[in-house]
Amino acid sequence: MLRRYLPILDWGRSYSRDSFTSDIVAAVIVTIMLVPQSLAYALLAGLPAEVGLYASILPILLYTVFGTSRTLAVGPVAVASLMTAAAVGEVARAGTPEYLGAAILLAFLSGFMLTAMGLARLGFLAAFLSRPVISGFISASGLLIAAAQVKHLLGVDAGGQTLPEIARSVWAHLGAASLPTLLIGAGATAFLFWARTGLRPLLVACGMAPGRATILARTGPVIAVVATTVLAALLAALASALGLPGSGIRTVGEVPSGLPLPALPPFDADLWARLAVPALLISVVGYVETISVAQTLAAKRRQRIDPDQELVALGAANLGAAVSGGFPVTGGFARSVVNFDAGAETPAAGAYTAVMMALATLTLTPLLYYLPQATLAATIVVAVLSLVDLKALPRIWAYSRADGAAMAATILVTLFAGVERGILAGVALSLTMHLYRTSRPHVAIVGQVPGTEHFRNVRRHEVVTAPDVVTIRVDESLYFANARFLEDVVQAEIAANPRLAHVVLMCPAVNAVDASALESLEAINQRLKDGGVRLHLSEVKGPVMDRLRRSHLLSELTGEIFLTQCDAMRRLAPALTEGTLRAARRGTNRVGPVVVPSP
Amino acid sequence: MLRRYLPILDWGRSYSRDSFTSDIVAAVIVTIMLVPQSLAYALLAGLPAEVGLYASILPILLYTVFGTSRTLAVGPVAVASLMTAAAVGEVARAGTPEYLGAAILLAFLSGFMLTAMGLARLGFLAAFLSRPVISGFISASGLLIAAAQVKHLLGVDAGGQTLPEIARSVWAHLGAASLPTLLIGAGATAFLFWARTGLRPLLVACGMAPGRATILARTGPVIAVVATTVLAALLAALASALGLPGSGIRTVGEVPSGLPLPALPPFDADLWARLAVPALLISVVGYVETISVAQTLAAKRRQRIDPDQELVALGAANLGAAVSGGFPVTGGFARSVVNFDAGAETPAAGAYTAVMMALATLTLTPLLYYLPQATLAATIVVAVLSLVDLKALPRIWAYSRADGAAMAATILVTLFAGVERGILAGVALSLTMHLYRTSRPHVAIVGQVPGTEHFRNVRRHEVVTAPDVVTIRVDESLYFANARFLEDVVQAEIAANPRLAHVVLMCPAVNAVDASALESLEAINQRLKDGGVRLHLSEVKGPVMDRLRRSHLLSELTGEIFLTQCDAMRRLAPALTEGTLRAARRGTNRVGPVVVPSP
Repeated sequence: MLRRYLPILDWGRSYSRDSFTSDIVAAVIVTIMLVPQSLAYALLAGLPAEVGLYASILPILLYTVFGTSRTLAVGPVAVASLMTAAAVGEVARAGTPEYLGAAILLAFLSGFMLTAMGLARLGFLAAFLSRPVISGFISASGLLIAAAQVKHLLGVDAGGQTLPEIARSVWAHLGAASLPTLLIGAGATAFLFWARTGLRPLLVACGMAPGRATILARTGPVIAVVATTVLAALLAALASALGLPGSGIRTVGEVPSGLPLPALPPFDADLWARLAVPALLISVVGYVETISVAQTLAAKRRQRIDPDQELVALGAANLGAAVSGGFPVTGGFARSVVNFDAGAETPAAGAYTAVMMALATLTLTPLLYYLPQATLAATIVVAVLSLVDLKALPRIWAYSRADGAAMAATILVTLFAGVERGILAGVALSLTMHLYRTSRPHVAIVGQVPGTEHFRNVRRHEVVTAPDVVTIRVDESLYFANARFLEDVVQAEIAANPRLAHVVLMCPAVNAVDASALESLEAINQRLKDGGVRLHLSEVKGPVMDRLRRSHLLSELTGEIFLTQCDAMRRLAPALTEGTLRAARRGTNRVGPVVVPSP
Repeated sequence: MLRRYLPILDWGRSYSRDSFTSDIVAAVIVTIMLVPQSLAYALLAGLPAEVGLYASILPILLYTVFGTSRTLAVGPVAVASLMTAAAVGEVARAGTPEYLGAAILLAFLSGFMLTAMGLARLGFLAAFLSRPVISGFISASGLLIAAAQVKHLLGVDAGGQTLPEIARSVWAHLGAASLPTLLIGAGATAFLFWARTGLRPLLVACGMAPGRATILARTGPVIAVVATTVLAALLAALASALGLPGSGIRTVGEVPSGLPLPALPPFDADLWARLAVPALLISVVGYVETISVAQTLAAKRRQRIDPDQELVALGAANLGAAVSGGFPVTGGFARSVVNFDAGAETPAAGAYTAVMMALATLTLTPLLYYLPQATLAATIVVAVLSLVDLKALPRIWAYSRADGAAMAATILVTLFAGVERGILAGVALSLTMHLYRTSRPHVAIVGQVPGTEHFRNVRRHEVVTAPDVVTIRVDESLYFANARFLEDVVQAEIAANPRLAHVVLMCPAVNAVDASALESLEAINQRLKDGGVRLHLSEVKGPVMDRLRRSHLLSELTGEIFLTQCDAMRRLAPALTEGTLRAARRGTNRVGPVVVPSP
């Protein structure tokens, strides 16, 4: 029991010296990658840079204790940071203590919800988000994030939560753009784009082992950070020595040194109510992303992820972020892949990362004074553009119009009405599309394939039917969305066929019958009775039959229940059914049933 | 084409003298029932009494033109009136012109939405409401409506939208209760309750034909209205003759005579936005009720209802209500049954009812001056208590815990937080329950029943399996809600079985694979490939296969696609499969497949 909730008891027991070495190496590499990322994502969320560092210490440590993935790296990520900025921006002004308090509260609420969902085993709630919706949302968020960085690359004050708002605001401030900032931002962006593809071949050409080169090539952001910080510091020293005004490059500035102090979220019922929905959305989106990364990596080593325990672990990490002055965290894709590639063997690698991040927070903060904000913006732009996958849209559209439309709508609403409405519109669309599809299930009127015990769609096959019997096969579970449709189908059949005396519902593909569908079946039975027609059921599955026995339907049914459709027709149209079977036997001397290929 | 949208062209063509006679008789009886009801429901909606009459003229006429049901009677009904009061009460104060304007706008929006949904064939949207939710909502609304009448029965000014609010408000005003009002209200209520069951036997005992007695017994409300109006008029005359103050009985008072003037809904974008959601809810609830009544009655005469055209007809009726100064209308259950029982043969009966209602509006209004409001309240109480069916709750709970819980929650939220939240909570719960059920579908690991070509659940049957092959049968369509669950199941199997080399997904019950599930299948295929395991599919249905051909899955699949599970095992574990078949043939001399009873 304890082991279920504390996976560390499992892997910690057999922790070896070899694992220790591998984990330490991975932790060093992840830390080098995480320092600039955590600063940049704090900036994206509209928070002071050090908050990003705080969110990369205790949360990672807690995930080590509670997580079931061996290689997942949690911390600040782009999409959750954007969602934080959108949610907190609604309730407070950036730069105020209220803004930071709201971000902490968001992490707290998110942590609480995730933990509660995990303990109640409600991981299925993530199922509200279909893949096309998630994919569209992530792509649109990536574009929004990149657009929001333009102000940092130009060195202007601009705002906005949607693409038109951002464009309008940047346009209005364009006159105040700073050329040195633009040069640093453009240079860093160009270098980082090149580093993504060009650095590794260069390192290999210089004689480095390909594996090590792959990992080292990920340190592009650190190189950019160091180079531009030195440049900005030199420019400032030069200006000061010559008595000139500053270069106009905005830098991170004073960052408080030392570890975070324990924090408590503000107690304000109104604020809690206003942040509840954003916290839920951040939780679910973060969880879906986390579990995808964790499962992809676990499968490569045939390890197992417990989705409900991952909720608990992610919840603990967010509660940890809240009490240590951070903001919402989740599992990061790129970072986890680096951790995996660098050879992390156990979650202990995360603990070592946390310790190193704490050391960085204690010692590196004075060095960040001259780090240009444009450099951080450049790292964000390059990182998030890899999230944008618009090519998925035509691919999904080709497979399913409904899914493609849901994805396109999610992208448009996210870009033009903001992240929160985007994800809500996506959820509503996913559900509507699903209901639409299942509300008009495939229904076939079937007849007997002559000389066999098989029954097939009358429209597709040469079959025989009795004039006073109609057999309706429904290829879907019966539930509230299609209950009325079934009534319509039966109604249409009895209205079209005045000689009808028997309706047989053939149910081999009906996996469930809920209370709404039961009521429809009862209504159909009653209406057919009023019209002098009997209702029969055939090929009802075991679990469905068990459930129907709890209702009055079976006792009120005007007709019978047949194990097979052939039994039904033998009883309801004996001459016809036996006739074709006998003819077949006489004609071909076949013994036993004749196999017909599936439709 | 024109006929589809104008069903009157269909039945009007063959309209006969016999039908005319039957329709006129039915129209007279419905009109007698409708006059007090329309006044009472206007009162319930917080509107002047004449608005109820206006809503019973043009809407009924328009339904005659557009409706496909031969016997449905539209007009003001209890639940829609309560929902109107709740929605309009949020935006205006009762008794003001703004209140009436908002009610007209509500009818207009509802009419517009219903017509648009009908033309776009979006009738499936009604499927968002499961039966238990509708049933719970109607029961709770009935209780709320009855509670709201207590103030009229006591003759006090009270308010409130929820049960606690109403109780608190009535309690606070209890001191101002009027004894004469209470006596009239209690008397009318007692009489109406008795009339429901006692009037018909009495009429039969007096020698009336049972059929005619059934219909005449429905005129109880008219008797109560006439008797109490005369009583109130006499009391007023007496008081005036003796120079005493009035009796304190509140009556309907001055009702403008004459037909409604054409009205336009107010143009106020903010008001439109605030009433959009209530209008949608009234539309959907009204439509669901209408179609249920229409189908029940149509089935008795083997007639057909077109659900999409019914949307158009109900939409036209509501647009008609809006332009003639009425409020939202829908198909009434009791009224339609009376129309049917009274022998209405075509929708023309509705047209005659409309004409008679117009005549009543022109001539009867002066007579309504002394009609006590308490009498109307009594007719409402007696009418709505028949809507309350709390016995459905234990019945549905016994059949399905999920549906029972959704129903109970809908009842509680409606009673304690109001109608709008009640129905929204019900919709959210229905969807959540459905996703929960399908997100963890029944999944079986199957093995071969020795000596047969049948494959059954390894937990329930004596079957043989190969050590390096696992066959997973999913008994549900694959879509976004269960896509991740499938990944978990496969992940668990490969983590538990290190010798695994083949995974077969057996899909005889998979009716659809959406884009999310496709992505999961692709992820499973890739992950299994990374782990050195091949993924195969068997018994994929035709339509599902057609769709999969549009994706990359089939070309990237590491394994094969088998028409039958037996083919798959013959290929993947030939020795085992053929072995058991051969042994069976040797042992029992059976020819061909052996039939095993369904699980």
